[in-house]
Amino acid sequence: MEEKHSERYKKGLHVGHEIWGAEFDEMMKTSREVDPDLQRYTVEYVFGDIFHRAGLDLKTRSLCTVAALAVLGRRNQLRFHLEGAVKNGASKREILEVLIQMSVYGGFPAAWDALSVARDVFTKLGVKD
Amino acid sequence: MEEKHSERYKKGLHVGHEIWGAEFDEMMKTSREVDPDLQRYTVEYVFGDIFHRAGLDLKTRSLCTVAALAVLGRRNQLRFHLEGAVKNGASKREILEVLIQMSVYGGFPAAWDALSVARDVFTKLGVKD
Amino acid sequence: MEEKHSERYKKGLHVGHEIWGAEFDEMMKTSREVDPDLQRYTVEYVFGDIFHRAGLDLKTRSLCTVAALAVLGRRNQLRFHLEGAVKNGASKREILEVLIQMSVYGGFPAAWDALSVARDVFTKLGVKD
Amino acid sequence: MEEKHSERYKKGLHVGHEIWGAEFDEMMKTSREVDPDLQRYTVEYVFGDIFHRAGLDLKTRSLCTVAALAVLGRRNQLRFHLEGAVKNGASKREILEVLIQMSVYGGFPAAWDALSVARDVFTKLGVKD
Amino acid sequence: MEEKHSERYKKGLHVGHEIWGAEFDEMMKTSREVDPDLQRYTVEYVFGDIFHRAGLDLKTRSLCTVAALAVLGRRNQLRFHLEGAVKNGASKREILEVLIQMSVYGGFPAAWDALSVARDVFTKLGVKD
Amino acid sequence: MEEKHSERYKKGLHVGHEIWGAEFDEMMKTSREVDPDLQRYTVEYVFGDIFHRAGLDLKTRSLCTVAALAVLGRRNQLRFHLEGAVKNGASKREILEVLIQMSVYGGFPAAWDALSVARDVFTKLGVKD
Repeated sequence: MEEKHSERYKKGLHVGHEIWGAEFDEMMKTSREVDPDLQRYTVEYVFGDIFHRAGLDLKTRSLCTVAALAVLGRRNQLRFHLEGAVKNGASKREILEVLIQMSVYGGFPAAWDALSVARDVFTKLGVKD
Repeated sequence: MEEKHSERYKKGLHVGHEIWGAEFDEMMKTSREVDPDLQRYTVEYVFGDIFHRAGLDLKTRSLCTVAALAVLGRRNQLRFHLEGAVKNGASKREILEVLIQMSVYGGFPAAWDALSVARDVFTKLGVKD
Repeated sequence: MEEKHSERYKKGLHVGHEIWGAEFDEMMKTSREVDPDLQRYTVEYVFGDIFHRAGLDLKTRSLCTVAALAVLGRRNQLRFHLEGAVKNGASKREILEVLIQMSVYGGFPAAWDALSVARDVFTKLGVKD
Repeated sequence: MEEKHSERYKKGLHVGHEIWGAEFDEMMKTSREVDPDLQRYTVEYVFGDIFHRAGLDLKTRSLCTVAALAVLGRRNQLRFHLEGAVKNGASKREILEVLIQMSVYGGFPAAWDALSVARDVFTKLGVKD
Repeated sequence: MEEKHSERYKKGLHVGHEIWGAEFDEMMKTSREVDPDLQRYTVEYVFGDIFHRAGLDLKTRSLCTVAALAVLGRRNQLRFHLEGAVKNGASKREILEVLIQMSVYGGFPAAWDALSVARDVFTKLGVKD
Repeated sequence: MEEKHSERYKKGLHVGHEIWGAEFDEMMKTSREVDPDLQRYTVEYVFGDIFHRAGLDLKTRSLCTVAALAVLGRRNQLRFHLEGAVKNGASKREILEVLIQMSVYGGFPAAWDALSVARDVFTKLGVKD
């Protein structure tokens, strides 16, 4: 059983590391301590199965994820995926455009809450205009 | 006052028509009958101010909008923006990738509900793989 | 026990009937067939305890309820409370203003979905501008 | 790769069939036509990985799922999992208790919308008190 | 009027105290200071009417409540009801199973946000595997 | 183009200042640093177009906004609009009535989360019963 999962798990760890680098490895270690099962499913399903699928480039995947997390109000994961979007090649301008657009679909509070997270991420990563 | 708004309104009508064609014109006529004020704000703000902004291509805007509407469960607008995504050059594959990805962020029910709308849209528009 | 509840229940039935008339009585009968317990709690808590409380007039209560149901996307109850708002003295204009304002807080799709319900209610009740 | 997934997929099909019988098989066929990839992930992850996990009995899993879908307002999946709850041994009374309780956490509209779905399911399955 | 409510209120205080002990009493005191009316309704309706109803055991009620609060993203009440679930006899494993399952219905962010709250609760209460 | 917007922008700044005073000016300055474009759209659309519209008094607008933000769980904007409600003439009692009513439509957790924000606002503004 363990063997059956291992290819997807290894693939997922690789995909995550390619995008977020050491931060991903660290987060996986932390989340394994919270719950090793959901950590494994997250690596296997989210990163091993879904995130690297052909048919959509990583930058667009990241921006769509940012859009969804902004309207859902999930700040922790939004922060993580804003960093992912930057690392997948999205410019500050492109990220801001997505968040501004969310004022239309999720309302202005959703957009502003997301922008306050984005500002922190841009500062942390040293992203300039 | 009326004059002040007119440039944004004309711009919005133009942007919408460029994407959705006669269907947009028809929808604007119908929605004007529902409420002329919100119809005007929608044309001015959504299409006149936001949708055509530089900094993000229309296809990516459409896909991010589809992602947001899928997790919010707004079927009517999802249908409209799935058509918009096709018209802005998104392939069936790209749209399906966005919706599959939403299983991770909004849950599997959000993804399946959105896919059932997408299937209808693909059929209506004759979109093949 | 039954006796203890009866004052709140009678109060609730009275409050609902005062606002919605025979339609309320009919709805209570239908919902009693769906689940008599939740029907009782709804009459007791929603209408017996809350809706008639002093400190806020019924029209404002109705409009705030309409605002909440619009952003939550609960169409069935929205229809019911739009009728309640009309019966509590809200004008078509006031109701439309609340729904237009929800474009800001819940997004444009929330506002449009709610407006499509409102149009039906205005037609049914013969509400003119 | 295909081989690696097959155990989870077979497991998932088996788990689903055990609960929903021929209806599950039919639904999987239909959903494969909508999107074969998300259908596969659903079988593998939802039913192959998660639903049959040790540590929580199937009846409680079904009731918790019903609770979540009720507050999320996802009617299609709610219908499906209400049937699953019945088939996993939940009584009509237990299901109604969960939905009544949701009036507290998701609001009365969430509870009533879910009860209207449950009534249909009970009728379809011939569930008596 | 006051007399009429008192049985339900006393019942509610008793039910809450049975589950959460002194912590419940303390929370009721604090919430009475925030708003004595909603505090009274909460005691009467949530704990006096609903939580102790026959037809569903307290452990399952708590787990369904945890499921709903996880997908709704209501952290404060989630913390409180995670403690309630433990006190109603749910094991750490059962609680984790419910939260892992929510990755399917509310998305992975909902599950992870809830798990981070659960970790704190388990630590506070000294719950071991 | 810039000229065309300026009337709405000036109007919006004026409307916001009339309600929130120097706090609005300060917030606009801060939000301009976060994103000057969404700040401009917020001033133009939210305050320039919508908030001062005829047909609904400012107090009712504020209370409906508070209702929507409470059920959506948007704490930052809820804080801001609770202050706006006070400044637009809503009494502490009226605000509390709206939030208590939200227990019915958005669930008790939504009401309690909003009440905890309201308590802070009342303290800050020195609002007495």
